[in-house]
Amino acid sequence: MSNCIVAQSGGPTAVINASLYGVIEAAFNHPKIDTVYGALNGITGVLDDNTLNLSEIFGHNHETLEQLKYTPAMYLGSCRYKLPDYSKDPATYEKIFSFFNKKSIDYFFYIGGNDSMDTVSKLSKYAKEHQLDVKIIGIPKTIDNDLVETDHTPGYGSAAKYVATSLLEIAHDTYIYNLESVTIVEIMGRNAGWLTAAAALARTTYSTAPDLIYLPETPFDVYLFIERIKTLQKNQKNIIVAVSEGIKDKDGKYIAAAVSGSYDAFGHARLSGVGKTLEYLLADQLGCKVRSIELNVLQRAAGHVASYTDIQEAVSVGKAAVETATQGLTGKMMAIKRLYADPYVVDIQPVNVDLVANHEKEVPKHYINDDGDDVTTDFMDYAKPLIEGETRLNYKNGIPDFINILHLKR
Amino acid sequence: MSNCIVAQSGGPTAVINASLYGVIEAAFNHPKIDTVYGALNGITGVLDDNTLNLSEIFGHNHETLEQLKYTPAMYLGSCRYKLPDYSKDPATYEKIFSFFNKKSIDYFFYIGGNDSMDTVSKLSKYAKEHQLDVKIIGIPKTIDNDLVETDHTPGYGSAAKYVATSLLEIAHDTYIYNLESVTIVEIMGRNAGWLTAAAALARTTYSTAPDLIYLPETPFDVYLFIERIKTLQKNQKNIIVAVSEGIKDKDGKYIAAAVSGSYDAFGHARLSGVGKTLEYLLADQLGCKVRSIELNVLQRAAGHVASYTDIQEAVSVGKAAVETATQGLTGKMMAIKRLYADPYVVDIQPVNVDLVANHEKEVPKHYINDDGDDVTTDFMDYAKPLIEGETRLNYKNGIPDFINILHLKR
Repeated sequence: MSNCIVAQSGGPTAVINASLYGVIEAAFNHPKIDTVYGALNGITGVLDDNTLNLSEIFGHNHETLEQLKYTPAMYLGSCRYKLPDYSKDPATYEKIFSFFNKKSIDYFFYIGGNDSMDTVSKLSKYAKEHQLDVKIIGIPKTIDNDLVETDHTPGYGSAAKYVATSLLEIAHDTYIYNLESVTIVEIMGRNAGWLTAAAALARTTYSTAPDLIYLPETPFDVYLFIERIKTLQKNQKNIIVAVSEGIKDKDGKYIAAAVSGSYDAFGHARLSGVGKTLEYLLADQLGCKVRSIELNVLQRAAGHVASYTDIQEAVSVGKAAVETATQGLTGKMMAIKRLYADPYVVDIQPVNVDLVANHEKEVPKHYINDDGDDVTTDFMDYAKPLIEGETRLNYKNGIPDFINILHLKR
Repeated sequence: MSNCIVAQSGGPTAVINASLYGVIEAAFNHPKIDTVYGALNGITGVLDDNTLNLSEIFGHNHETLEQLKYTPAMYLGSCRYKLPDYSKDPATYEKIFSFFNKKSIDYFFYIGGNDSMDTVSKLSKYAKEHQLDVKIIGIPKTIDNDLVETDHTPGYGSAAKYVATSLLEIAHDTYIYNLESVTIVEIMGRNAGWLTAAAALARTTYSTAPDLIYLPETPFDVYLFIERIKTLQKNQKNIIVAVSEGIKDKDGKYIAAAVSGSYDAFGHARLSGVGKTLEYLLADQLGCKVRSIELNVLQRAAGHVASYTDIQEAVSVGKAAVETATQGLTGKMMAIKRLYADPYVVDIQPVNVDLVANHEKEVPKHYINDDGDDVTTDFMDYAKPLIEGETRLNYKNGIPDFINILHLKR
């Protein structure tokens, strides 16, 4: 008897279930694997013995499995749990591996971001040191695209497609009025500006939106920003700005925190988002219409406008993880390597998860223009293939026919 | 020589260009009509002689005309201009009809909401009184669904589909965490709660979201709201609330205005949206995670998730307007009449525009439950058919291939 278990962790993406689909599909077809389990709410499901038998659920139900591929967020639920160091808390490790032993688990797949790769690293080291034959493999996902050692992360392309599509629709919404306006669009990304950079993919032959792009990688100067807007206003009516939630001034202080006047019950200032902050600032400085739009959680869960390239790659990393584990490798993360830029060709390869865990990949300098208010054509060449293709999800009663997640509603 | 002119006005919808498509397509095929003009930025384009020759642009370009059908917001641009009364400003009327005369315009089609119908009413009365043979027809559009004399308005179904789809995706985003949370989703609709009510269409066999729905038609009681949340929390972890931006307390005061602590340059309190207001309120009262999401302008311009039923109906009202005008009628708005509920069948009929202008249709009592925190099955039966079917727009470079609107960027 040789079983496997899979879990999901961190923030949602539109395609994290596509990776789960990949794992399930490959494990079902693999002669070395008997039963496929899913742990609920990440590694905490392993600790609490809270699992689903995915072989039973999906084994004779290929249609439901297909539905999983197009459903955003996590079928197995998530957690924000960082595994303690072994030296400080050996009991947690013993609990996990005794569970693995009880269920005859030989392979553990963890789909997640930075923290999940830290868990993969710690568990695989523990297994090696204690001669426990459980292969532990990480499967990357994050809309933030901030994992190192991989060309990009599954989840990023779909979030980028949502951001670009929304930006273009905001442009159509904005250009109709014959009056001066500034629209600030706040996009997720506290430390890395990848998703905000993707707003540039909204540009067409007729629309320059976003006219300015600000990433956390470049210090943000409020006065230069206002001057830049004023200069642009000499030649165009409507200005649309994409700004990362995490932009900071030269001293590293969040712009979002700089302006505030609302207090909570304890007297702490509430932080308005950077969009609102800049909206108020511009409204005070310019005599025109200013509005801000926060794309919010929709950008990470918009399965209805997922990138098909992203879905396919998410499936591939899931499948490759099963292949890698059954070949006897452990402590690896499945990485996407770009073999050719044009035509775009990728390969999935295992990399040492220690190189990934607890590192963060920022947008490199050559993807940002010299003024720090736009991206370069190098970035456009990098990002364009990732949003290609549309999801093939079905609709029912006018809304997406996603998979039933009643088990998460306990 | 007998020409026609068409213009668009008010706020954007995903299908207002589908109505423009309907007008153009029908006018091209009509023996009575020679050239089709479009006035830019609504009636102000007529006043400023700022027009496009749509026959030249689309006459030999059926592919571009098809593209128009799936492009959100206004190809011809919009305005927020209310025509003055004739008694106060006859010159404006003379200017409009002298322009019509100069261009041999026999038919004027105005696509818009309440204010546009007011313009249609005034111009058609003026024409009749001055024996000017120009037929003036209104074509309804608004995401607010607040026009009387029509079962619903084109634009509502697509916005409703966007709201329902987003709500379901927010539910998937929310249910993954094994912790108590309340999510407030703020939806457009200052006086009429139709669009917020449509959030109920997000419900599935596994998702109850939104658990509570608050419309401006029912006075909002903050204390009852908090009690309602606390009661729900006894049985479920994640609560999702849909709330109209325009909810008011029993004295008619906007809830959005009640809590505030940010001031503009002139010392005026800035009004936070109702979502943020309720978020702060709940965060102070409950010990759990609270967040708010404002759907913002995306709900009115999301062409990528438009309802195909809505698109088809928008085309039909445009075509029917041409038919009605060329039959010699004037001062009419094209209304949608529901002939059968199930299967859903509608007919397009002209109604007297005076019955429509300056009236507002609120959500009727039998569509709202007794507690004022949900909709009824009557409403569900009414709204369900309107979001059926998906748009058929093409994508290019990973984003929607909308029509070029460079002419609006002057």
